[in-house]
Amino acid sequence: MRKSIALLLTAFFLLPAAPRARADEGMWTFDNPPLKQWKERYNFEPTKEWLDNVRLASVRLNDGGSGSFVSPDGLLMTNQHVASGQLSKVSTKERDYTKNGFYARTAAEELKCPDLEINVLVSFEDVTKRVQGAVKAGATSAQAAEQRKGEMAAIERESNEKTSLRSDVVTLYSGGEYWLYRFKKYTDIRLVFAAEEQIAFFGGDYDNFTFPRYDLDFAFFRVYENDKPLKTANYFRWSKSGPSEGEFVVAPGNPGSTNRMLTLAQLKYQRDVGNPLQMQVWTSRRDALARYAAGGAEQARRAQSARRSLENSIKRLVGQQEGLHNARSFGRKEEDERKLLAEIARRPESRSRYAPAWAQLEAAYKELPAMAKRLAFTTLAPSRLGTIASQLVRYAAETTKPNSERLDEFRENRLESLKLTLLSPAPIYPDLEEAVLAGWLEEARKTLGADDPFVRAALEGSTPAEVAKRVVAGTKLADVAFRKSLVEGGAAAVAKSDDPLVALARRVEPVYRELRAWNEQHILSVETGAGQKIAEARFAVYGKSVYPDATFSLRLSYGRVLGYEEDTTLVPYKTTFYGLYERARSFDEKPPYDLPARWRDGRDKLDLSTPFNFVYTADTIGGNSGSPVINRNAEIVGLNFDSNIQKLPNRYWYVDDPEGGRAVAVHSAAMIEALRKMYDAGKLADELTAR
Amino acid sequence: MRKSIALLLTAFFLLPAAPRARADEGMWTFDNPPLKQWKERYNFEPTKEWLDNVRLASVRLNDGGSGSFVSPDGLLMTNQHVASGQLSKVSTKERDYTKNGFYARTAAEELKCPDLEINVLVSFEDVTKRVQGAVKAGATSAQAAEQRKGEMAAIERESNEKTSLRSDVVTLYSGGEYWLYRFKKYTDIRLVFAAEEQIAFFGGDYDNFTFPRYDLDFAFFRVYENDKPLKTANYFRWSKSGPSEGEFVVAPGNPGSTNRMLTLAQLKYQRDVGNPLQMQVWTSRRDALARYAAGGAEQARRAQSARRSLENSIKRLVGQQEGLHNARSFGRKEEDERKLLAEIARRPESRSRYAPAWAQLEAAYKELPAMAKRLAFTTLAPSRLGTIASQLVRYAAETTKPNSERLDEFRENRLESLKLTLLSPAPIYPDLEEAVLAGWLEEARKTLGADDPFVRAALEGSTPAEVAKRVVAGTKLADVAFRKSLVEGGAAAVAKSDDPLVALARRVEPVYRELRAWNEQHILSVETGAGQKIAEARFAVYGKSVYPDATFSLRLSYGRVLGYEEDTTLVPYKTTFYGLYERARSFDEKPPYDLPARWRDGRDKLDLSTPFNFVYTADTIGGNSGSPVINRNAEIVGLNFDSNIQKLPNRYWYVDDPEGGRAVAVHSAAMIEALRKMYDAGKLADELTAR
Repeated sequence: MRKSIALLLTAFFLLPAAPRARADEGMWTFDNPPLKQWKERYNFEPTKEWLDNVRLASVRLNDGGSGSFVSPDGLLMTNQHVASGQLSKVSTKERDYTKNGFYARTAAEELKCPDLEINVLVSFEDVTKRVQGAVKAGATSAQAAEQRKGEMAAIERESNEKTSLRSDVVTLYSGGEYWLYRFKKYTDIRLVFAAEEQIAFFGGDYDNFTFPRYDLDFAFFRVYENDKPLKTANYFRWSKSGPSEGEFVVAPGNPGSTNRMLTLAQLKYQRDVGNPLQMQVWTSRRDALARYAAGGAEQARRAQSARRSLENSIKRLVGQQEGLHNARSFGRKEEDERKLLAEIARRPESRSRYAPAWAQLEAAYKELPAMAKRLAFTTLAPSRLGTIASQLVRYAAETTKPNSERLDEFRENRLESLKLTLLSPAPIYPDLEEAVLAGWLEEARKTLGADDPFVRAALEGSTPAEVAKRVVAGTKLADVAFRKSLVEGGAAAVAKSDDPLVALARRVEPVYRELRAWNEQHILSVETGAGQKIAEARFAVYGKSVYPDATFSLRLSYGRVLGYEEDTTLVPYKTTFYGLYERARSFDEKPPYDLPARWRDGRDKLDLSTPFNFVYTADTIGGNSGSPVINRNAEIVGLNFDSNIQKLPNRYWYVDDPEGGRAVAVHSAAMIEALRKMYDAGKLADELTAR
Repeated sequence: MRKSIALLLTAFFLLPAAPRARADEGMWTFDNPPLKQWKERYNFEPTKEWLDNVRLASVRLNDGGSGSFVSPDGLLMTNQHVASGQLSKVSTKERDYTKNGFYARTAAEELKCPDLEINVLVSFEDVTKRVQGAVKAGATSAQAAEQRKGEMAAIERESNEKTSLRSDVVTLYSGGEYWLYRFKKYTDIRLVFAAEEQIAFFGGDYDNFTFPRYDLDFAFFRVYENDKPLKTANYFRWSKSGPSEGEFVVAPGNPGSTNRMLTLAQLKYQRDVGNPLQMQVWTSRRDALARYAAGGAEQARRAQSARRSLENSIKRLVGQQEGLHNARSFGRKEEDERKLLAEIARRPESRSRYAPAWAQLEAAYKELPAMAKRLAFTTLAPSRLGTIASQLVRYAAETTKPNSERLDEFRENRLESLKLTLLSPAPIYPDLEEAVLAGWLEEARKTLGADDPFVRAALEGSTPAEVAKRVVAGTKLADVAFRKSLVEGGAAAVAKSDDPLVALARRVEPVYRELRAWNEQHILSVETGAGQKIAEARFAVYGKSVYPDATFSLRLSYGRVLGYEEDTTLVPYKTTFYGLYERARSFDEKPPYDLPARWRDGRDKLDLSTPFNFVYTADTIGGNSGSPVINRNAEIVGLNFDSNIQKLPNRYWYVDDPEGGRAVAVHSAAMIEALRKMYDAGKLADELTAR
């Protein structure tokens, strides 16, 4: 146990240049699981049945997270923070399930979610040739994009007609591959259990992305079909012991988005323009919500879910920027690109075929900074009502077009899911909407200037506060029936509506469409075209030993349960309930280190040495929240809910073991101990642990 | 509680240049306490009685630490790690007090330490004029040093003759001031209590310099005079509650050594030559001990105290180097020097008087690298027997000279203390001595080469292993009576001794003396001369609002009990016993996170929410170990035992509050809780808490 000093000595007195093995890297698709690595590193060779079962027991929550089936009766496990959007929608001032938690002791008490859709990946099929083959010789970038999009829409429609399954063509490897994913879709999802936010998110924003950690970030839904609990043939059983130190584990889930294939030109844009702009957008939204929340306890409750999500995004973005600004890490990306280009240059035929892609991207990205602010701010999206209004206006316009010519999100196969949220009965709070919209328009005017086309169209000479007040006061869009009438009324109904928020959305729509078209033509189509070439170059040089960037589709991540070194001491692989009380008492239980009353008063019921959270080396990112962590027997040993701070640059590269990057999970034993002893939820614990 | 993200945003998106207030800085002498800062920052105005009481209740342990009187009956509190040298000396294979702890239930069981001397500062007097005035006009640097030294010896002798007190002239501000310190000295010190090392040093070298922390690093001695417990009129009472968050506290103690007055030339030498060389010396000694300790449990026990001390020094040195290699921190030192030089340059008379000092130092330090390795390795000191042999040889030579011409450590006023260790009955382990000496000579030969004068004199053509084996096997120096005969026999006895280790010491002595003379003449005398000028320049520019570098003499440090931010989360101001069990369990109690049996089995006896360790902002460094932490009523609220990792560069500058530098202490409540409930030592707890 002398390594830390040895390492430090190396760092200060020798300057190391050790070769690096990127163990446990990758978010692998089920068509290309990392079987070689598993066999070599962990002597693990799963059967096809193992892989099929894992895939079919894994769930995407379209709110933006992952989950898994954990009983034969449709019980679904995820994080409290993944559930928190729905928790907030089923809560009221009188019944605050976010704050107080929730437990349905009987089936009758299970609480239907207003607008949650979940997807299970039932099949996948390579359609790369068909999509790429649709591009006609001599097509420009923009034309090629249109042709590919048309083909993707056709494939989706055919599949949907044939199977009735949700069918999405998923773009992988920046266009290097296209896959038809078919999903079984469920929309009758009911809340069974959620921990109080104060224990699910103990330590708040401070301890977010921190380890050692003491969060019981768990919740359970039950999936219904035909008003009955879904019979799930594929589900994960519960491990008796949880993970031991060093144990191999797999985390199937839906990592949201990574940018590991970006060229240096793209990365530099992110670092110098894109991320700082994103930071402005998020902080201004966060600040508007904070001002609103300061108005009282009920306002704070209403704003809580969105604020937590924004804080999380901001803290993550700070970590990503830290990575990009780190000369050593960025240097490795430069080295990677140099190496790939050198490999290409060695072969004349590949040089002419692939090398221009980098230059094309660089040229395209030169145009982007001048447009970036307009692209970021020309939207009403931060306001829920604003989103609805714009979607209605766009829906009316798009659904009159042939399927293959529509904007992506209005293709036939997406409409049902779109309507689920568009017509959701989830509560809308006009005062919150007004505060958010006013803040957003104010920030847009400040950033773009009063003469900007979007700002002019939105404000028409009034102040942001006046406009927000007028349109929110006057709109009927909070009423689901009214929205439905506009959906069904089509273009004519939308065009003649005198609803002031619909009118606002109509006014800004042309500006939005102009910018979207510009982006599509100048940036996105170049990205896809060049991205495909770069992916092909990578395949040509490295073979298919690479995994695609995350796209919020199902992946396999894996690694070991493993502590690490930080500064000059050790961070353990797990925490226990002792640590929860330590952290609370060490801050004299001042927020955010105060305990829910149940936990403060119930301490003596617990075995304090029960493992609580643990860390492991798997390659995960936002979207993996709620991923089950399973052992080689496909048993639940944990529930993924976070990463540590070291890992945050993993949007751009895998932060590997020696750097201390870790995924963070709730330990399976903590969930059972808490359900049985703290929540009097033995019935639920029994359902989980029945063999 | 949103500061962390705000700070990060600032760091990444704005680049800050905030002005910095160096609050709570300084290790202040009792002649110049920081009364202004205390009044302004903490509204605290101590009386003269308060200051006198604090001074007289504070103790220097000449082993290398601090302590305090905590009862009217001579009870002395310090750290287990300060006591550990003595613990090791009174332990045997059968009775390992380091491992198992110690508690004397009765006065009769109190255990006399073989060679511990403690000092209480009873008076101090400014003798600057007399010392500086002794330098004659036209003296060279070396002559001036001799003249000052002669005067210091005379002052000490006069004082000792007049008062019988130990009288030391202490050099402050690099020679800017000289003070006569008179000490009451005690040498009958008995062990009352020590915690098991496994709880005193829980987490071992990994958690050393770490916070949050869970160490019960405490021990108690009793001071005897005339074979009776000393009646101590000045002692610290025990606080009922311990410190609250934000509370003002004072830590009187004996910080060992700082280098804050160094010029850039000196700092660069430390960074580039001195510290790396020191690192080599310590790691080679550590490694030799580790090889020896691997031989068995008893060997490990014998080596433990020295190993722990070396590990501690190494880890601290790494932290110091990290500070010197930090461009921003080093930049502040450059800025400080630039500012001082600019101030001097503004006034023509001060320019000619002070400015040359920097150039003199720079010139002197240019010569040092070529000599540094020889200066570092030409010694037998790493071996205890080697030290004794060299001291005997030197003692014989020096005591024939007049007092004013002797090497510092052989001046009359120091001889009694020197003999205490030279003639200590503490056990000596020949096999350990041989291993250490062989390792040291090997490293010296490797570093200096076989033709180096020291190496040639030491080895005389044999191998290091042969020499070590022969001299340790043949020497009688482990026998105190034999040593005594050489002390009393004087130069003649030493010269004719055929003891092989004495012979070895005689052979290397001329090389040692030549190098010491070179160093005195070329470096040390220039440092004192130039140091005095630079100190005067500082006084001229800033007034006496500065404190002197630490010199292992009594100082006042102060600050607030205060948590801090680290990465993007909060570190609390204290820990509790919960955290001890958390840290043990989170590592599955693997060493160094295993608990002593008493603590593992006795958990339920404890109130786990009892505060355990805490952090505060005071400016402390090694030597402050064992300092009492007191509140404004001069009551014990804690026991200083460490610093956190952020604070380690404080050898060169104060690491202030926003940087998270903190001193670490055992909380007063933890000591009482443990004494009463874990050690069945209610009697001792009663003695501490009696009012």
